[in-house]
Amino acid sequence: MVLRVLLMSGDNKWFTEIFAASGSAFGLAITKKLDEVKSPFQHIEMFETTHFGNLMVIDDVIMLSSRDNFLYHEMLSHPVLFSHDKPKNVVIIGGGDCGTLREVLKHTDVETVTQIDIDEQVTRMSEKYFPELCASNNDPRATLKFDDGIKYMREAAAESIDVIIVDSTDPIGPGEGLFNRAFYDSCRKALKPNGILVQQSESPLIHMPLLKDMRDAMTDVGFSALQTLLFPQMVYPSGWWTCTLARKEGQFTGFRESDAEQANFNTEYYNVEVHKAASAWPNFMKKALNSK
Amino acid sequence: MVLRVLLMSGDNKWFTEIFAASGSAFGLAITKKLDEVKSPFQHIEMFETTHFGNLMVIDDVIMLSSRDNFLYHEMLSHPVLFSHDKPKNVVIIGGGDCGTLREVLKHTDVETVTQIDIDEQVTRMSEKYFPELCASNNDPRATLKFDDGIKYMREAAAESIDVIIVDSTDPIGPGEGLFNRAFYDSCRKALKPNGILVQQSESPLIHMPLLKDMRDAMTDVGFSALQTLLFPQMVYPSGWWTCTLARKEGQFTGFRESDAEQANFNTEYYNVEVHKAASAWPNFMKKALNSK
Repeated sequence: MVLRVLLMSGDNKWFTEIFAASGSAFGLAITKKLDEVKSPFQHIEMFETTHFGNLMVIDDVIMLSSRDNFLYHEMLSHPVLFSHDKPKNVVIIGGGDCGTLREVLKHTDVETVTQIDIDEQVTRMSEKYFPELCASNNDPRATLKFDDGIKYMREAAAESIDVIIVDSTDPIGPGEGLFNRAFYDSCRKALKPNGILVQQSESPLIHMPLLKDMRDAMTDVGFSALQTLLFPQMVYPSGWWTCTLARKEGQFTGFRESDAEQANFNTEYYNVEVHKAASAWPNFMKKALNSK
Repeated sequence: MVLRVLLMSGDNKWFTEIFAASGSAFGLAITKKLDEVKSPFQHIEMFETTHFGNLMVIDDVIMLSSRDNFLYHEMLSHPVLFSHDKPKNVVIIGGGDCGTLREVLKHTDVETVTQIDIDEQVTRMSEKYFPELCASNNDPRATLKFDDGIKYMREAAAESIDVIIVDSTDPIGPGEGLFNRAFYDSCRKALKPNGILVQQSESPLIHMPLLKDMRDAMTDVGFSALQTLLFPQMVYPSGWWTCTLARKEGQFTGFRESDAEQANFNTEYYNVEVHKAASAWPNFMKKALNSK
């Protein structure tokens, strides 16, 4: 259950998201509502905040702000791409705000990126209110499809994709079908033998059972190795988030460090040391996940 | 400015702290107020939360919860102690909840720990509502003083202390004098030549100017090397926090890894990999701090 509260405090209103499952709440001060649309899939709202730029909210859940989305988008893109030997063909499931797409396209080795988000309105809103994230949408290597990502992966040609990035909402609503064995099985079949899947995998502090289920499901369908990375993400529950990488074959034995070191693009969060650091698991996490 | 909001939502009340400087807010659902006391220094309140155990609030600012204080207390203790060759005499300034004290006393090499918190009522409240944090208060190596930490450090014998841990509130109110050159100068003089100071140093995402000022001040008074470590801390602004280590002489060239690996005590967050990972700076932080 997500409750949503707008309360007045002096001249500012607040958008507050209540995380009922953890009895916690996070809010940002807003100056005004910029826009909203009810798409066939969800209710999308845009606010202007006092300190965090623009804020996108979908079905009362905070999706991203101008100021801190770089953490999530960089961590969902660069670790997996630098963990793959030579990622040429990338598929993004979800990702309608196009922030992940922008990061992926920074890699000049990438030849095609196909993004499949079910809701075109997310991208239309992002073009308007996060133009910086959509700056690469017209890159000739990019294809934006607005369709069902589950169906897309089910019908994808076997062994056709190098990297799949699942940049989805939480596992309720439209995102639900992206967190189960059937979907992971489709992804695994569509990956080339050296392919890697990465998916946002919620908070290590408050969603451990979900993270464990995701990892178990990925293992069950045959992925040979997993790597869960940790990073801060202020606007998400607990301010601490993860993504989980899954290799179709082989093990995680480092990444292309020298390529990452010499990358000819800028990042605000990601670098070689940050990439290595993200794989350090706290003791409570090792215990909960049995060091798998 | 800190505003404080209690709002009703169904059966639960909320304690919400508004961080005016960043236009953000964090709240925990509470079932009841357990206690409160107005000491000569501050207003201390204890709440029972729905999901985070007990919650201590001082002057409307969230100090700690039962559930997530381990992150902060472990990171303020173990990295500095394992960075020192042989820490025998430790001084804690602040730290009245005794969580840092408990972590320090886990190190069997430590011979004396003197804790100086200005407000005895913080410790009395902690004994009652965080008994697990006060479990080592009667350790014969521990001395609890309730006095002015600034004065204590000014009068401390030169070169008498191995490790100083500044576990303070924010740099407003009683904590203010713990963030300036005069205090750092006292600390430096009181440290033995191989001594190390560590201080909580706020959020990398929203308090960068403060962190920069702290580091500049530490350098100005003659500390020879600094190391700012990053870690998650859900109940503090942005959910992302830092502590800064300062060496009286020499450089930071690793820590006692094998001792940390073989430590005969349990930690929930800290381990060797986490210690190393904490020193990885994001690009925006390297840029803001000029890689100092």
